[in-house]
Amino acid sequence: MKATLIYGERDIRFDVVPEPSLQAETDAIVRVAAACVCGSDLWPYRGIAPTAEPHRIGHEFVGIVEAVGSAVANVAMGDFVIAPFYFCDNTCINCRNGVSTSCLNGGWWGSDDRDGHFVDGAQGERVRVPLADGTLVATPEVPDAALIPHLLTLADVMGTGHHAAVSAGVAEGSTVAVVGDGAVGLCAVLAAHRLGASRIVAMSRHVARQTIAREFGATDIVEGRGDDGVAKVKELFDGIGADFALECVGTKESMDQAIRSVRPGGMVGYVGVPAGGPELPIRTLFNTNVGVRGGVAPVRGYVDELLPEVLTGAIRPGRVFDLELPLSDVAQAYAAMDERRATKVLLRP
Amino acid sequence: MKATLIYGERDIRFDVVPEPSLQAETDAIVRVAAACVCGSDLWPYRGIAPTAEPHRIGHEFVGIVEAVGSAVANVAMGDFVIAPFYFCDNTCINCRNGVSTSCLNGGWWGSDDRDGHFVDGAQGERVRVPLADGTLVATPEVPDAALIPHLLTLADVMGTGHHAAVSAGVAEGSTVAVVGDGAVGLCAVLAAHRLGASRIVAMSRHVARQTIAREFGATDIVEGRGDDGVAKVKELFDGIGADFALECVGTKESMDQAIRSVRPGGMVGYVGVPAGGPELPIRTLFNTNVGVRGGVAPVRGYVDELLPEVLTGAIRPGRVFDLELPLSDVAQAYAAMDERRATKVLLRP
Repeated sequence: MKATLIYGERDIRFDVVPEPSLQAETDAIVRVAAACVCGSDLWPYRGIAPTAEPHRIGHEFVGIVEAVGSAVANVAMGDFVIAPFYFCDNTCINCRNGVSTSCLNGGWWGSDDRDGHFVDGAQGERVRVPLADGTLVATPEVPDAALIPHLLTLADVMGTGHHAAVSAGVAEGSTVAVVGDGAVGLCAVLAAHRLGASRIVAMSRHVARQTIAREFGATDIVEGRGDDGVAKVKELFDGIGADFALECVGTKESMDQAIRSVRPGGMVGYVGVPAGGPELPIRTLFNTNVGVRGGVAPVRGYVDELLPEVLTGAIRPGRVFDLELPLSDVAQAYAAMDERRATKVLLRP
Repeated sequence: MKATLIYGERDIRFDVVPEPSLQAETDAIVRVAAACVCGSDLWPYRGIAPTAEPHRIGHEFVGIVEAVGSAVANVAMGDFVIAPFYFCDNTCINCRNGVSTSCLNGGWWGSDDRDGHFVDGAQGERVRVPLADGTLVATPEVPDAALIPHLLTLADVMGTGHHAAVSAGVAEGSTVAVVGDGAVGLCAVLAAHRLGASRIVAMSRHVARQTIAREFGATDIVEGRGDDGVAKVKELFDGIGADFALECVGTKESMDQAIRSVRPGGMVGYVGVPAGGPELPIRTLFNTNVGVRGGVAPVRGYVDELLPEVLTGAIRPGRVFDLELPLSDVAQAYAAMDERRATKVLLRP
């Protein structure tokens, strides 16, 4: 089969790789129906995270189960399934605590599982899925093609935006500032809206993204950044800032923006993968009682909550995809996101 | 009158200072019945926070109201009052949000108020209290001398320990590790116990403090520190750590201990005044979904909740005082705490 490898900075190739096969009785093989490129894939693409040697890449996919091991009970051949951006048993103590990204038996697409068997990356034609019962969620029926982008967001960006909002503690009547207008930031707007936030500020300078933010429930747009952005957000909320900020980028600047945009005693929910730092400014946090909570989002656990609303069309997070390409053109997908010509690119085999 | 000044490293003096007088109609003058030395007073005492020029010090006191301005309605002459370790109006938006330490009109003992009038430090014979209606809480009657130490803890350490527990989110059935066996750490044990924690680990190597920790509700004692301490705490909780850690010291080592002692998805509630750092390790927090929340404790708001239990004797946080000296011997009090001969020193004029 063919799958995506990263060779180094701005060097993405769609190469022939070994066909996956069942390695354990808890495995499944899934034929990818759709995959996509994540903002965090751009860190190695841009060379910010160096690539020591060529390796498989991609961690978001949905697809059709083609084979299952003898111990797999929750999904069957022919099922349409959503995979989170990691695999997990969904039964260990960390999974039970709602932190399946810290599963004691889990791992990451494109690297080895606990038994030392390689697990495919998601930007390929097929993927061997370890711990299939824990990892995969089957939809009640095989969905229409139009629904696939929305379902695919449950693999990462929608669940991740939701995690930012949940980690911060967004609830009915909350005021929220969202830092980052990428796919995750937009999904965080949608998540805050779902959770009942009364006012949601999207920080964005990009007209098309502002439009989606409004669709998703943003009540205000702030184009300013740095001191100016902070001042504008504070101005909207009695001069003190929003109850919560959702940090969806991962840079020093975005975290700083988030921390300074919340009121004393507020919370920052953060999900931006920290790009080589920064450390958090403890003295500022201490003086203002601003808390920080978040991290790599345990999206597997959120699928159960979000899937019904995707299936009914109550939420349409797939709106974040603004370019669709054949999987074989994956290199173009990276380039489009790198050059900010696309917010998020959907890939279909 | 006489009051305490710090002149520099290990140089504490009880000097003659100007008698305070009412400066605004919202002021009160309080005759100090008891004051004490805070662990954070040791930062300048030890020279870790340098003292540029001699200044008044001390921020914890209870006492008797001797005079009130014409606009003061909530306290009256002769009342016994508890003052938090700061002054606040208790009506501004930050106070209403429960963060009275960020009061828009508040400030700190031993420095100027918003009108530019000097506010006395607490380790003295009398204190001018700005915003008396917001700042002071009167007890129903003048308490017995035996109750005074317990009431005095509501000025800081008990409220601060409580803030660590509340910031972390300790609730019925929680598992908790408390880092720090000073007065605040011990109060954090008591606070976690009050909030229903099912298991509370006190990290302490000090037998007398371990005894108080047990009295306050600790179920386990861990003497180890660093990697060893972390391993021991993890061992107690399924190998993954406690739900919550309460950081009550303020050093890099104690924060590290706290962050590494909680399970994935857990929370660190912190109240240790950061001693010149450290910054928080964002990558570790991100990977484990450990959150951090806390800061300078808004104890004024906690008095209402905690005072009734102090008055009935249901909680006896004043047990943290293990030395009592005349106020005039304040320099000895600092030395005793610096040399760890005392956990916390009570001073009576």
